[in-house]
Amino acid sequence: MQLWFSEDQTRHIRISVRIKAVLHRETTPYQEVMILDTVELGRMLVLDDIIQVTEHDEFCYHEMMSHVPAFTHPRPRRALVVGGGDGGCVRELLKHPTIEQVDLCEIDEAVVRACRQYLPEVAAGLDDPRCRILIQDGIAYVKDCRDHYDVVVVDSTDPIGPAVGLFDEAFYRAAARALTADGVFVAQTESPFFFQDILLRARRNAEASFAHAALYWGVVPTYPGGFWTYTMGSKTVDPARPDPEALARRAAAVKTRYWSPEVHRQAFVLPPFVRDLVAR
Amino acid sequence: MQLWFSEDQTRHIRISVRIKAVLHRETTPYQEVMILDTVELGRMLVLDDIIQVTEHDEFCYHEMMSHVPAFTHPRPRRALVVGGGDGGCVRELLKHPTIEQVDLCEIDEAVVRACRQYLPEVAAGLDDPRCRILIQDGIAYVKDCRDHYDVVVVDSTDPIGPAVGLFDEAFYRAAARALTADGVFVAQTESPFFFQDILLRARRNAEASFAHAALYWGVVPTYPGGFWTYTMGSKTVDPARPDPEALARRAAAVKTRYWSPEVHRQAFVLPPFVRDLVAR
Repeated sequence: MQLWFSEDQTRHIRISVRIKAVLHRETTPYQEVMILDTVELGRMLVLDDIIQVTEHDEFCYHEMMSHVPAFTHPRPRRALVVGGGDGGCVRELLKHPTIEQVDLCEIDEAVVRACRQYLPEVAAGLDDPRCRILIQDGIAYVKDCRDHYDVVVVDSTDPIGPAVGLFDEAFYRAAARALTADGVFVAQTESPFFFQDILLRARRNAEASFAHAALYWGVVPTYPGGFWTYTMGSKTVDPARPDPEALARRAAAVKTRYWSPEVHRQAFVLPPFVRDLVAR
Repeated sequence: MQLWFSEDQTRHIRISVRIKAVLHRETTPYQEVMILDTVELGRMLVLDDIIQVTEHDEFCYHEMMSHVPAFTHPRPRRALVVGGGDGGCVRELLKHPTIEQVDLCEIDEAVVRACRQYLPEVAAGLDDPRCRILIQDGIAYVKDCRDHYDVVVVDSTDPIGPAVGLFDEAFYRAAARALTADGVFVAQTESPFFFQDILLRARRNAEASFAHAALYWGVVPTYPGGFWTYTMGSKTVDPARPDPEALARRAAAVKTRYWSPEVHRQAFVLPPFVRDLVAR
């Protein structure tokens, strides 16, 4: 059966993935939500025709989104995930023994519902008693928070549709206010090969809102170009200089496939073309 | 104009790239050689419908293929590139001040000719007086070499067609004999997400043929999954433990966009899922 899903990764580059079945398709007030069963990548969450999560490689993204900020904070107790309705970041954050609560603030309940049903291993953390699900606009929610979260993870779609405000400086400033004294913020900020303007804007926002701004990277095979960036803001700790001993000691409790203490440290080493891009 | 080139990256994943023009197309005794002008990636070399080189991201691949082995060797004078008819690895190797000669052993003269004409910035090194071009079978050539090269770089296509023998243990052993006392060998060994068998076979070959075997990685956006591996064999120097000071000192003479002394060292840090794969 030659059934293919295609995503326009850029206007001029397209990825196509062979499909076994369309498991779920729904148009919500925010977007089109699809769960596809693929031949090679396992099940796949697609929002507005953009691949968000595949069972095959989601660990690369969710681990780097979650563990780098969580290990940057000296002792994270409360975390907030904005977006991320699939639950992958929640699952990873809950692996930290100090974590007492993870709030998931997802605007679209259909994403949570579809992932719970069709991607149970990704959504596993959503039923943990330490997880609270808030179906509401993350921008409005964060605006009203004060001094509450140790870690804020912005697991958004690309800056189109409902996610556009998550790339604004006002949101970064609000996230800084929502964070506690040693608070750490992270957002996925796209590819340095194809979406340099998004990355640079996030960088400026983080620099304007936090004492420390840092870019780190990792690979996500099903995202455009594979090379993915994460922009971090931190109130006190310099994220780019983690303490190797503390990292190794805390890592023993956290089982991972992509993240490791060494990968954590290497993620802040930028190839010169990326370093020069953000130094402009 | 909706003109697209598509590559089947695996049997079930396809990448498509929008094209402005077909600049060159030729069927040789070995393969089909195409040079395409793309909208977003610059010009692109395609062999048997597989993307080899794009102007946009070739630096990622050629720098990591060339500088990691060249900087591993204490003082490389003579290097051999097997395959690599586009000239990208030659160009990078020639950046090392100690290099006196780079031999390019490419089986298909049509690749060299097409790249010289249409990818002059990639092929730049081919006209350097230190470069010698040998149009012949790399396997036969290496078999007859003894104790001659300091660095051997195997810049091959995937292990189908003329390149298949380059993934055999016999070739690795011959390459070890062709190398001098501190000789360093490297081969591109595909993606750990999609081609694990190729990577593991290369690993076993390197372990059987060299005192030190090591895997390192980098990103190549237009290769399947983006996460690309390189398998290294070394006769005396442990490649995974380079001397940071020597690296930094020698790096000053070599201008790069992806490789740096820090990237060099991070490239040997494998995410746990890759580390576990090769430790099997």
